[in-house]
Amino acid sequence: MLGNFSYCNPTKLYFGEDSLQALNTELPKYGKNVVLIYGGGSIKKNGIYQDVMQILQENGKNVAEIAGVMPNPTLNKLYEGVEIARKHQADFLLAVGGGSVCDYAKAVSVSVNCEEDPWEKYYLRFEEPSCETLPVGCVLTMVGTGSEMNAGAVITNTETKMKIGHVFADEKIMPKFAVLNPRYTLTLPHYQMVAGIYDIFNHICEQYFSGEDDNTSDYISEGLMRSLLHASRIANQDPQNYEARSNIMWTATWALNTLVAKGKSTDWMVHMLGQAVGAYTNATHGMTLAAVSLPYYRHILPYGLKKFVRFAEAVWDVNPVGKTDEQVAQEGLDAMEAWMRELGLAMKLSELGATEEMLEGLADSTLIMKGGYKVLDRPEILEIFRESL
Amino acid sequence: MLGNFSYCNPTKLYFGEDSLQALNTELPKYGKNVVLIYGGGSIKKNGIYQDVMQILQENGKNVAEIAGVMPNPTLNKLYEGVEIARKHQADFLLAVGGGSVCDYAKAVSVSVNCEEDPWEKYYLRFEEPSCETLPVGCVLTMVGTGSEMNAGAVITNTETKMKIGHVFADEKIMPKFAVLNPRYTLTLPHYQMVAGIYDIFNHICEQYFSGEDDNTSDYISEGLMRSLLHASRIANQDPQNYEARSNIMWTATWALNTLVAKGKSTDWMVHMLGQAVGAYTNATHGMTLAAVSLPYYRHILPYGLKKFVRFAEAVWDVNPVGKTDEQVAQEGLDAMEAWMRELGLAMKLSELGATEEMLEGLADSTLIMKGGYKVLDRPEILEIFRESL
Repeated sequence: MLGNFSYCNPTKLYFGEDSLQALNTELPKYGKNVVLIYGGGSIKKNGIYQDVMQILQENGKNVAEIAGVMPNPTLNKLYEGVEIARKHQADFLLAVGGGSVCDYAKAVSVSVNCEEDPWEKYYLRFEEPSCETLPVGCVLTMVGTGSEMNAGAVITNTETKMKIGHVFADEKIMPKFAVLNPRYTLTLPHYQMVAGIYDIFNHICEQYFSGEDDNTSDYISEGLMRSLLHASRIANQDPQNYEARSNIMWTATWALNTLVAKGKSTDWMVHMLGQAVGAYTNATHGMTLAAVSLPYYRHILPYGLKKFVRFAEAVWDVNPVGKTDEQVAQEGLDAMEAWMRELGLAMKLSELGATEEMLEGLADSTLIMKGGYKVLDRPEILEIFRESL
Repeated sequence: MLGNFSYCNPTKLYFGEDSLQALNTELPKYGKNVVLIYGGGSIKKNGIYQDVMQILQENGKNVAEIAGVMPNPTLNKLYEGVEIARKHQADFLLAVGGGSVCDYAKAVSVSVNCEEDPWEKYYLRFEEPSCETLPVGCVLTMVGTGSEMNAGAVITNTETKMKIGHVFADEKIMPKFAVLNPRYTLTLPHYQMVAGIYDIFNHICEQYFSGEDDNTSDYISEGLMRSLLHASRIANQDPQNYEARSNIMWTATWALNTLVAKGKSTDWMVHMLGQAVGAYTNATHGMTLAAVSLPYYRHILPYGLKKFVRFAEAVWDVNPVGKTDEQVAQEGLDAMEAWMRELGLAMKLSELGATEEMLEGLADSTLIMKGGYKVLDRPEILEIFRESL
């Protein structure tokens, strides 16, 4: 049932081909000292960096930079960014990139004025900030994570091999605004595009596959999944299709901005399995999820049969006539597998550099979540990793 | 296609049985002088008034009241409320009621410091406020309009018999927060409950029946419609079903908070027809929409055939095998009609007090919108009213 909750997502979204111009509306609201945060430098090749810098200069901003934010932002990189932001007396953090860059900017935001070690406070004790945080804005260049409209921030501790996400409760941690220009995503390699698409799909699944009632969140989730399937098939054939990439970008935002989690316990076990793989292999996030998903869902299917039947019919148009519930549910997952293969997703962990020798360590690094249809034990986690290999 | 747009809905929603306690979190953020706005006094019978007043007093607020806000708030009532808010030097407006009360509070908010006549500025010239506005909070006791999370405010000028809605562009006009307690809706008479349900459904239709592409908004709309159909059938049989009423309440908010309008031209012609009826008969809003909907949709069906086919299959599970598109589309509307009759909605304007003699006047009072599949002319409007009679 829907139950008791609050919802607030104040992030202002600017969507479309001209949306970067919104920086001229938003930047004047914040102080002079801006830290520009970005990743490996692709934004310099495609011209986005130059466009952003010009607008920052036209708005009289004093800009410092944190460059080289990696796909799985590390704790050491966080420490480095905090130092830069402190030294610059930053008033505002502008993230230009994908989910990792947005996540990282939020992690810097809550850490700049934090007197404790942010890893211990936010990622081991899962506390809320007790200090002033810095406002964050995002210019999105890759889609998938939904980080542009939520208060989540995943950080990887490479020493302890732990990749942990903290979704902060306070909406002030959410970006103040996000610029969503689908055209920026057109230059992304096919591999990254489909990894992002699967990340979006899995975000919806993680919320959908929990609970047994028919609440509004499940119906919205089914709409988002159908939209994503439709657009992904077009984009897979024709990556330059602006319309399809627009719908993928918009779906990504709504897949993980807390809306479809309302009234749901939510699962997130696929993310826990995938994040363990990410910490070991540094593989692309969406691909780690893809490789473990089907073994996981086939494993929990008997415990959530009713929902898997609904999934098969409402998302994959499986015709239930003359079939058992088990058959319908299996056909749904078979249809999902066919779609994943069509996109060219990683279907095995071995494709991502994981090895037999890593399995015990992966199982050790996997946090066990309790919201899904079956709370896994360690042998089950090991079994799922083995089946995924 | 999705195109270019911005989206921002900063309203904080507190949902569930204990949500009124959120007033203790929200009220301290605003000044001492509060104007409490409500309707016909049912909140005094069911105890909500007393609960709200107690919390206002515990928070040290100095309270004035605007009582008797009617189902179609009038311009004269707006003038009266503006005077009360000015005299009280209001810092905050707290609306306790349904959509009319929330709409009215927003209209007062933009008018208190307005030096011009608000009817002319906001409802004839559709301008944005150029003055300071007052913050508004809502405690919702009836569902349907979605007014609790949008910047719309409908006002009726009884002298000119014009009922006009203005959806303001600036998100600061949206309520700062809304308290959504499904239990408050359980005491509503069946007639009001189903009228609200149809209002929600029609809000989705007005946005869905525009454009021919497959964008994400349409998929979300289909999810919301399916959720509403499911919950409405439960609530119709068992109005005390808290779970069903919860899902109806939550769907209502998302049906009209701008989300499913993104990338859509939107139509709103059913609302224009219904609002003309409302101005003449003072009938319940949702019922005026119900009475004109099917004649309108059957009239425009040939111009939006592809979308009506999709509607039939995706929302009403019409099986298209062996049928023409026209047959599938008609079956969709037939299924919708059967559902409307099942709920006991007004299917004819004559049930609402409209007469043959009113038809010319109704047509004169109907604003013509241009976003749907066919821009109506006056003879078509007259014809639809006649078929609805």
